[in-house]
Amino acid sequence: MSPTEDEITGWFAGQRPLPPAAYPIGIGDDMAQIALAGGASVLITTDMLLDGTHFDLRTATLHQVGYKSMAASLSDCAAMATIPLAAVAAVGLPADFSERQLKELHAGILSAADKYNCPLVGGDITAWKNDGPFAICVSMLSKPGDNPPVRRNGARVGDAVCVTGSLGGSGRRRHLEFEPRVREALKITSLVTLNAMMDLSDGLSTDLNRICHQSGVGALIDAASIPISEDAKPAADPLGAALNDGEDFELLFTLAAEQWEKLRSVWDDPVPIAMIGTITNTGRMQIRMPDGRTSDLQPHGYEHLQRQT
Amino acid sequence: MSPTEDEITGWFAGQRPLPPAAYPIGIGDDMAQIALAGGASVLITTDMLLDGTHFDLRTATLHQVGYKSMAASLSDCAAMATIPLAAVAAVGLPADFSERQLKELHAGILSAADKYNCPLVGGDITAWKNDGPFAICVSMLSKPGDNPPVRRNGARVGDAVCVTGSLGGSGRRRHLEFEPRVREALKITSLVTLNAMMDLSDGLSTDLNRICHQSGVGALIDAASIPISEDAKPAADPLGAALNDGEDFELLFTLAAEQWEKLRSVWDDPVPIAMIGTITNTGRMQIRMPDGRTSDLQPHGYEHLQRQT
Repeated sequence: MSPTEDEITGWFAGQRPLPPAAYPIGIGDDMAQIALAGGASVLITTDMLLDGTHFDLRTATLHQVGYKSMAASLSDCAAMATIPLAAVAAVGLPADFSERQLKELHAGILSAADKYNCPLVGGDITAWKNDGPFAICVSMLSKPGDNPPVRRNGARVGDAVCVTGSLGGSGRRRHLEFEPRVREALKITSLVTLNAMMDLSDGLSTDLNRICHQSGVGALIDAASIPISEDAKPAADPLGAALNDGEDFELLFTLAAEQWEKLRSVWDDPVPIAMIGTITNTGRMQIRMPDGRTSDLQPHGYEHLQRQT
Repeated sequence: MSPTEDEITGWFAGQRPLPPAAYPIGIGDDMAQIALAGGASVLITTDMLLDGTHFDLRTATLHQVGYKSMAASLSDCAAMATIPLAAVAAVGLPADFSERQLKELHAGILSAADKYNCPLVGGDITAWKNDGPFAICVSMLSKPGDNPPVRRNGARVGDAVCVTGSLGGSGRRRHLEFEPRVREALKITSLVTLNAMMDLSDGLSTDLNRICHQSGVGALIDAASIPISEDAKPAADPLGAALNDGEDFELLFTLAAEQWEKLRSVWDDPVPIAMIGTITNTGRMQIRMPDGRTSDLQPHGYEHLQRQT
């Protein structure tokens, strides 16, 4: 079996440990953080989106693809509760890509840039000499808000595990049109202290496993508490879809029980938050099914690097 | 005829003018600059490199490709005389790409990161679901040195036009192994004041045209003064190669005549600098040939977006 993206990323991170004063957050979180003079810092993320993998240009419009490529990076800014600053976009274009198509893509990028106040400040336009499919890579800068960036590795035993919105079935349409939870993340961290957070890009079971692994904890999820999206309800296995489908781009976070009580009592936002479980000291993920039985939960979400072999 | 990358980029820049206090340098330079609290700022660049366009994996090693992908962005840091800070790398992998290959690529990236003190702080690993060729996108942050970033738009009539190193024939081998002129750019700007600079990525005739266009000036180049690389000398037209070949990744800069006299008198670096011409008020590029005749110089360098049609 091939190593997962996490295993390879972990190996990469181990090759060159970064001095934490200059690079407070390195490989393995949703964004890396770079310290600058005078106490300032910036965070950076990069996302490569490929035709046929992250969207299908036979059915998705280039406007949607431009929007999604920005929204995926904006979701990383949200995942750390940081404020988006600026984006750059690089594209690899099929040989027959037209100026009209490039402008449609650009309009989609701008629609997200405008909505989330994160201007496009640069880019790179290249074309495949030997024909290749459309690829776009957005890199984005953010800055900390009033609170420090929230990392994946801070979950503590006893924490409530929470998600925004509802999960599963994003592939039907929502993965092209989702709203990155930038505003919600900043609002939550202005109200309470979070111990860990990330965005749900590869499915709840895979992404929760990342928080557990990086925090050295386990989790017990209550299946009946998972908010299942309307898109997932027609699926043969709606719970499986909510657990394992990728690209929900909702927030997954943990916080002390009393902080969750506080958040629940004051949260009046149209975007709902649900507590779906608890951080445990078991070192593994478990799920309590609606019939009361508890079983191990495996990371089955979408792994971009996963092979057939 | 299709619009050039410059025309499209200019159109993009015009769609959303950036507030200069927050974004001192936007679309159209080698890097964009973002202002931060307390007078700090960062610059960012992004470069997409494609198999078959920027390298050929049938002949180049993945170590070379990793090095080149970093070096191209480091050259952008040099182009503005800024100090590299950190890089992120996103890859789109063919379906049969192995862990061993990924580690070889990573070693190439680290070889440049180590040499130029610019750590890899994050990335994104994705794979083509429908098979596609290898693509890599490096985005890099830098910070200003003791002097402000040098832009493309500051060339003045009477300036000396200079280049580092020698030009042409990079495609033979040098485009995979070149040394980005980070140290040289910072050394030059510590000695004299430059009016304009960029790195030579698309060929002298194309890139000088960018400085002329953005500065609203012309230039007169002296063909006999152009340093022709050893790689270009066997070519059928060595001067044409030096003028038009892409990926030299040398520095092209302009400075007042007396500043050039000062630089020439103190420059003792192993990397040579040559004055190759003068900025003029003609509004167009001209070249004086070795036989004394002067003719217009057209931008014929490599345009990544150029089409066959």
